Amino acid sequence: METATTIDTARQIFGDRLSLNGAIRETHAHGEANAAATLPDAVVFPQTTDEISQLLALCHENRTPVTAFGAGTSLEGHVTPVSGGISLDLTRMNRILAVNDSDLDGRVEAGVTRKQLNFFLRDHGLFFPVDPGADCTIGGMCATRASGTNVVRYGTIRENVLGLRAVLADGTIVDTGGRVRKSATGYDLTRLLIGSEGTLGIITEIQLRLYGIPEAIGAAVCGFGSERGAIDAVIEIMQTGIPVARIEFVDTDQMEASIAYSKLDNIVAQPTLLFEFHGTERSVAEQATMAEAITVSYGGRGFAFATETEARNKLWQARHDAYWAARAAFPGHGALATDTIVPISRLAEALEQARGSVTKSGLRACIVGHVGDGNFHVLILYPDTPEGAARSWALDREIVGQALDLGGAASGEHGVGIGKREFLLREHGVAALAMMRNIKSALDPRGILNPGKLFVD
Amino acid sequence: METATTIDTARQIFGDRLSLNGAIRETHAHGEANAAATLPDAVVFPQTTDEISQLLALCHENRTPVTAFGAGTSLEGHVTPVSGGISLDLTRMNRILAVNDSDLDGRVEAGVTRKQLNFFLRDHGLFFPVDPGADCTIGGMCATRASGTNVVRYGTIRENVLGLRAVLADGTIVDTGGRVRKSATGYDLTRLLIGSEGTLGIITEIQLRLYGIPEAIGAAVCGFGSERGAIDAVIEIMQTGIPVARIEFVDTDQMEASIAYSKLDNIVAQPTLLFEFHGTERSVAEQATMAEAITVSYGGRGFAFATETEARNKLWQARHDAYWAARAAFPGHGALATDTIVPISRLAEALEQARGSVTKSGLRACIVGHVGDGNFHVLILYPDTPEGAARSWALDREIVGQALDLGGAASGEHGVGIGKREFLLREHGVAALAMMRNIKSALDPRGILNPGKLFVD
Repeated sequence: METATTIDTARQIFGDRLSLNGAIRETHAHGEANAAATLPDAVVFPQTTDEISQLLALCHENRTPVTAFGAGTSLEGHVTPVSGGISLDLTRMNRILAVNDSDLDGRVEAGVTRKQLNFFLRDHGLFFPVDPGADCTIGGMCATRASGTNVVRYGTIRENVLGLRAVLADGTIVDTGGRVRKSATGYDLTRLLIGSEGTLGIITEIQLRLYGIPEAIGAAVCGFGSERGAIDAVIEIMQTGIPVARIEFVDTDQMEASIAYSKLDNIVAQPTLLFEFHGTERSVAEQATMAEAITVSYGGRGFAFATETEARNKLWQARHDAYWAARAAFPGHGALATDTIVPISRLAEALEQARGSVTKSGLRACIVGHVGDGNFHVLILYPDTPEGAARSWALDREIVGQALDLGGAASGEHGVGIGKREFLLREHGVAALAMMRNIKSALDPRGILNPGKLFVD
Repeated sequence: METATTIDTARQIFGDRLSLNGAIRETHAHGEANAAATLPDAVVFPQTTDEISQLLALCHENRTPVTAFGAGTSLEGHVTPVSGGISLDLTRMNRILAVNDSDLDGRVEAGVTRKQLNFFLRDHGLFFPVDPGADCTIGGMCATRASGTNVVRYGTIRENVLGLRAVLADGTIVDTGGRVRKSATGYDLTRLLIGSEGTLGIITEIQLRLYGIPEAIGAAVCGFGSERGAIDAVIEIMQTGIPVARIEFVDTDQMEASIAYSKLDNIVAQPTLLFEFHGTERSVAEQATMAEAITVSYGGRGFAFATETEARNKLWQARHDAYWAARAAFPGHGALATDTIVPISRLAEALEQARGSVTKSGLRACIVGHVGDGNFHVLILYPDTPEGAARSWALDREIVGQALDLGGAASGEHGVGIGKREFLLREHGVAALAMMRNIKSALDPRGILNPGKLFVD
């Protein structure tokens, strides 16, 4: 068997950094998704790009599937080796290679995690803004085109990567982009690899944009009589150009769960916006004043502003813990998060439709949203049975369909993986999908890189 | 002859919108570049994407080269049909298709120009920030990955396009991206087409991000005792996170030319920074105060701040007219603009090296730079003879080499076209160039789209 040949030869390169151990293979069989797990034949822990190049040349030769694995926080089954083969664990490539204060950039290996990076950067007075919540690896964030709560001000991972090192299907090492802020020379290979979910190459090093830690950070929370009021306030805040760093929507059910879980005092369970403002002290105060005035005109009540670190952190920690709060509110339930995005003008409509579908399904759900860009998550809570899981998947599909009908996308930040493959054609159309497949065939003619992802076979 | 077949059949589709007229072919033989002009066999003026689809299917069938043409402002020969064939003039596709105030986006045909768009948007209280100076078409800006003076705050065209409609080599119409702010589904075909210089597809429609016109705009000018002082001030301003909208460097020679040409009073010819600040009145004033304090600490003198439209416009008009000011200062001279970019930490060094090369060459030059991102232009002024032109090209090549040695790129915003092809290998390396060629072969197997550009044959 060809995979056996790959494993035998790879063992000579990797020694005990190639594992056939059942428990290790099991931890590499799935991410955090609900999709069925599949065991890899072996797990390999490379330490250098050169080692990955050797391994991929071998896999290419023997047509052995290769699936990259980072922090395992994928929600759509990206890391599940559905055809077996090698799980390529990048967590030992976790060195921060450079930080350039003058250029506001840095270079990391793919296995560096977001929190590790920001902890390291603190002494430089710098930070990396892309924050999907989980402590994922930077390589995984690139592969899935991750974003999170800071996007309205700082952009997604796409806007914050200057260049990549990657290993292509045949083992070729490629450097894309560079250290400069922009370049007008040649095809944008960096952006082609970002979001390719390990199907075009294995990302091993990333050149990142960094930012100075703002002089002041302010947070605010504001309740609304209606969801539409909250969304309309967001639209006007964006139009006015207030440079909010984060602006998040939390629905009444999620607020109820979070108030209980995170012990938030003096906060009423109602449609709520959370804000974060970055800048000078004066600018943060001005931004908050302007945002408050707009919220009031859309029925916002009790805009509460805090600059003290403790109060701010408590509020945003509650937002980050929303998932766990919802789980705690529904013990014994499974949870599935949708990830649709629509143009912001259709957001209130999308939320209404989604809630209608939830009600019809008889399941429960909490909704949170990165509303500055129209991306929202319906956290579906379902009885933890095969039938309950099936109903939650059906509801997810229905909500995706609604978003697509409103001119949206099947995923704003979680990616396609296994779970959203069926929607790729509907979102992008025949021609774009054919163009993607054409590129895939050109760059990975033997189809060894993360087979079974992105495309329906 | 196959091109003759294409022309005969195309005439049935386009009637008198297909021209063989010598004068029309001549205007489509070149952009603003100094490269030798080549006549197309015919010029076609399509009005719809469908027409372009029919034409490309025909050209594909007959292996007829197709080169897109917009405003003709290319500086690197992109629009020159070096192998003859069809020049595809997109200027009749100049409709603004949609403006969505709530979503801060809009849709235009490829032939809409930047000034046309911003004139139209004014009534909506919106603007499109990417400003390369020339009144180029939005399609051309996409094809060449254009940027300009607003990049530090708003990003390049790459960050401001949500989706594209394009026609591929065989006539297939493809829609990439969409209306949403971000999507994590599928390969980033939008970014692949942006900067592909008409070699992968003909862009026909563009979905753009738009911005609210800021409440207040302030401008400032500040001279420095040394170039390094000016650059170090820029580095600290960027580190501090002051959200400057524009920050431009102008060297002493250029200042001298501009003071004379634009009749700038009370301004001394010395290394100078120009600023523009966007925000509320209070925020603009605060940004200016902070920037001024930093300039003073690096030897800046006489920071002059203006919020009145007239004073602002005069200053920035002078910056926009820098090219003409330099030409006026050297009557009878030809002009060639370099377009290198380096990490900002190497910028002072790059400027010193470039000036050293200018001196050695015996030619004259003025330097301006989008210093917020490390991109600068040496405007080489040469005696208008073949020998003078050859010396200017040699100097350009030498300056590009210096930038590449400093970790930079051969072009920050003008693109590759014909003029910078020789540097693609050195900037990107063997593997990345092979990957680009692989993609080109997959998407345009007959090589009909803008042959002779980007790649050295």
